[in-house]
Amino acid sequence: MTSKELFDRICAKQSFLCVGLDTDFVKIPEFLKSEREPVFEFNKRIIEATAPYSVAFKINTAFYEAYGVAGWVNMRMTVDFLRANYPELFLIADAKRGDIGNSSKMYAKAFFDTINFDAITVSPYMGDDSVEPFIGYKDKWVIILALTSNQGAYTFQYTEDKYDGLMLFEKVIDRSKKWGNIDNMMYVVGANKVDMLKDVRRLAPDHFLLIPGVGAQGGNLADIAHAGMNDKCGLLVNSSRDIIFADSSENFAELAAQKAMELQQEMAKLLSEKAATCG
Amino acid sequence: MTSKELFDRICAKQSFLCVGLDTDFVKIPEFLKSEREPVFEFNKRIIEATAPYSVAFKINTAFYEAYGVAGWVNMRMTVDFLRANYPELFLIADAKRGDIGNSSKMYAKAFFDTINFDAITVSPYMGDDSVEPFIGYKDKWVIILALTSNQGAYTFQYTEDKYDGLMLFEKVIDRSKKWGNIDNMMYVVGANKVDMLKDVRRLAPDHFLLIPGVGAQGGNLADIAHAGMNDKCGLLVNSSRDIIFADSSENFAELAAQKAMELQQEMAKLLSEKAATCG
Repeated sequence: MTSKELFDRICAKQSFLCVGLDTDFVKIPEFLKSEREPVFEFNKRIIEATAPYSVAFKINTAFYEAYGVAGWVNMRMTVDFLRANYPELFLIADAKRGDIGNSSKMYAKAFFDTINFDAITVSPYMGDDSVEPFIGYKDKWVIILALTSNQGAYTFQYTEDKYDGLMLFEKVIDRSKKWGNIDNMMYVVGANKVDMLKDVRRLAPDHFLLIPGVGAQGGNLADIAHAGMNDKCGLLVNSSRDIIFADSSENFAELAAQKAMELQQEMAKLLSEKAATCG
Repeated sequence: MTSKELFDRICAKQSFLCVGLDTDFVKIPEFLKSEREPVFEFNKRIIEATAPYSVAFKINTAFYEAYGVAGWVNMRMTVDFLRANYPELFLIADAKRGDIGNSSKMYAKAFFDTINFDAITVSPYMGDDSVEPFIGYKDKWVIILALTSNQGAYTFQYTEDKYDGLMLFEKVIDRSKKWGNIDNMMYVVGANKVDMLKDVRRLAPDHFLLIPGVGAQGGNLADIAHAGMNDKCGLLVNSSRDIIFADSSENFAELAAQKAMELQQEMAKLLSEKAATCG
């Protein structure tokens, strides 16, 4: 998928919502826990309920790996279900991988070939040759951690370089332009870092940004759109817990749909206000 | 396992060798590929051959995830085999994880509870709250990427802070002292970064260091010991490809044992020369 195609899908659905499947087994409704694959059953119902309002789904691998092989089985089933039924969706492995070249190559194989994701999140700490193996897969994307939504973002990401004055997250964005382009690379920027979104946009005016942290982590959608939207939208905004765990009764999927629809309606409004050139 | 216990095992075996199970399916001997679980069968034979010369084994998760669910099955089988037959070994998940707190907590569960590793490698990019969930598991360790062995280490890890003059890898070590101690935290320092080992030792005189990159990646054992060994050894030196893929014939395990033994013998010599206080 190119950035143009992703934008077209955003326009068609009037949404730049990414639903985060951070599916914590402990939190899924009790009545599902007797199912053969409870996490997949939960995901399936969440997907059916929220796909009409979404352009992307993001699977946080941590929540699956916590259950080992069974977790990977459920992750695989979820991606296969999404591919079979919703070919228009953009699928992100929120895996935060990154290793020396020959290992990163194996991670790329894992998340692009073995499991058919469109994109993977990657930690840039290990530099050029840890990211490059993810680039160059046809129609696949790498999403680089730039400025994350957690408190720990302040530990190292704002380190200011003695020589060029750039903060570490800015250096990551600046350097990454050697690695990829607007059709195969995005950045993670936390939804609570709105004041910094303008700095990111200065360095990366045309790239898509994946913005996690709306809702449970405190980000505000209108502020994000104001600071980060470009004329091709340029945003995927993720919401996880606020949607998928909105309710723990038998009606959980309906409540999830309601939450996703509310976000989509706000997004439609923001898309028209901010003059993203849909259509 | 405490650092004292790890040192005792190093003394008992006169070895600080970690064997890296970077088991690339493509590279394992042809005659094993018809086995039901070829990767596990390969690992089993490598472990039996090299365990007498080793104190630790390191599983690089990338090579397992490349084969999806089947890869995780083989990883699990390998760890279970190691636990059942070699309870004295220190088992490292070379997973390079790191995410916001509630996700890192899930990764800790994955690699400490669900699969019974002793340690996991963690990328520090996301800061304090991305690492802390791995700390505080009784007898478990977090191994933080400081200065890695790849060329990409130069991309960001040497970034010099405008205010305190520390390079990023030094900041990581310095800051990490808030997170853990010498009994639950180590650092990754590339074997080809010998000139920097002294800087690391200045900041972390008593911590264990995990040194990957001996052999295929160019590091020299004597140089590493000279620059990095402390009086409790303080080193785990990893070798992967040079041992496990030393040979691709039916004799691969014997050749692997030979390579591991050569390293162990050199290590025994270095342990006595460098006056590590064994015994």
